[in-house]
Amino acid sequence: MNFSKQFTSAILIIGNEILSGRTVDKNTSFIAKWLGELGIAVEEVRVIPDKEEVIIQCVNELRKKYQYVFTTGGIGPTHDDITSESVAKAFKKKYDYNQEAYKILEKYYANSDFNEGRKKMAKMPEGSNLIYNEHGSAPAFYIDNVFVLPGIPSYVESMLPPLKKLIVHGKKIISLSHDAKVRESSIALDLSKIQDKYPEIDIGSYPYSSDKGFGTVLVIRSTDEKLALNCKKEIETMVNNYL
Amino acid sequence: MNFSKQFTSAILIIGNEILSGRTVDKNTSFIAKWLGELGIAVEEVRVIPDKEEVIIQCVNELRKKYQYVFTTGGIGPTHDDITSESVAKAFKKKYDYNQEAYKILEKYYANSDFNEGRKKMAKMPEGSNLIYNEHGSAPAFYIDNVFVLPGIPSYVESMLPPLKKLIVHGKKIISLSHDAKVRESSIALDLSKIQDKYPEIDIGSYPYSSDKGFGTVLVIRSTDEKLALNCKKEIETMVNNYL
Repeated sequence: MNFSKQFTSAILIIGNEILSGRTVDKNTSFIAKWLGELGIAVEEVRVIPDKEEVIIQCVNELRKKYQYVFTTGGIGPTHDDITSESVAKAFKKKYDYNQEAYKILEKYYANSDFNEGRKKMAKMPEGSNLIYNEHGSAPAFYIDNVFVLPGIPSYVESMLPPLKKLIVHGKKIISLSHDAKVRESSIALDLSKIQDKYPEIDIGSYPYSSDKGFGTVLVIRSTDEKLALNCKKEIETMVNNYL
Repeated sequence: MNFSKQFTSAILIIGNEILSGRTVDKNTSFIAKWLGELGIAVEEVRVIPDKEEVIIQCVNELRKKYQYVFTTGGIGPTHDDITSESVAKAFKKKYDYNQEAYKILEKYYANSDFNEGRKKMAKMPEGSNLIYNEHGSAPAFYIDNVFVLPGIPSYVESMLPPLKKLIVHGKKIISLSHDAKVRESSIALDLSKIQDKYPEIDIGSYPYSSDKGFGTVLVIRSTDEKLALNCKKEIETMVNNYL
């Protein structure tokens, strides 16, 4: 599949905890599936450290290259949360309190200390639009085509769906799969012939081994459902020759 | 922490299945932890599609920027496995059968059909060195500072440890953590003061919420164990003020 820039995106995962191996990134999978439903392909994911110059450089590179950029991580209250300020610098915007965000946080922390760290979460690039948090706590934000989300997966999962209306949808990317109980290397050549016949379809081949032996999951991706179903049928027939 | 180029690395995850969200990448976490033990920091991870021009461009960019590059995925027998050929092109090397790899595969598939797909797994850039597979099946390879590994996590996990002798080690990166039963936003300012006091240490702050309430895991990373222990003690004392 080849998408025009209009239906492409990148994900920028910001956080030392992913780079050190301490945390396995789960946000990419969730965001990518959600975007796939909207017909937006994720063309690139980058994981980078909490370093200002790296964040600025990547945000500027990716926002020019793709229609949408989604960042996760680094918008909390602590010293290592430098995403918002770095995004402001990338856009050459003032980094200051967003009045609406400030009020939300003031209300949320009404019964506890509304300290500097908590106030910091109301700071963002001038001209940002809020992405609301269903718990009524710190909002995230977007500016132009860059959506700046938190790192905690449950927050990302609740904040993304309402953004659907902001995205210029493509056609939903259909993903079909067939679990073939054969070794990938047995069917490689025949599979390649089917791929040549369907240049508009992405056929992925993912081998696995389990207690029951070797197998291969074949994944058929396309925005054309009928074509995908035909391709799947042809793959199944081919695989049957090897069972 | 700031590392010289000597002790830096990048991971390049090649595969549409990660970008589509179908598969959660587990290789990054394993490789990064293994490298951390060797004192090598992962400075960047990229996830890219099975597209030749993208692979070539990324391999060339990353191998110049970092001391080591580890790629995963795309070295199997099927049409979508184009990593080896793309790496050959990145290095402007001939892409052809590696005689030793060919023999290994010929032996492995002795009792079955040694077909085109299987033979393809013996093709790699001229001048590559093999990375052996403990099952006696398809080897991976490295060329210069680029280590080309398979995508299946169990293969990566068995192939990496023997590579230790090839890596110019830094000092092991110590990672200590403290599970603070306080909200991140309560301790943000005090934590920032401790970070300022220990500029050589990376202090990461990772909030979570569970049935028992909010908490924050504080992670202290350094190549200096004594300094890390002092820093941890100071953090614990600080946190106690908020319990």
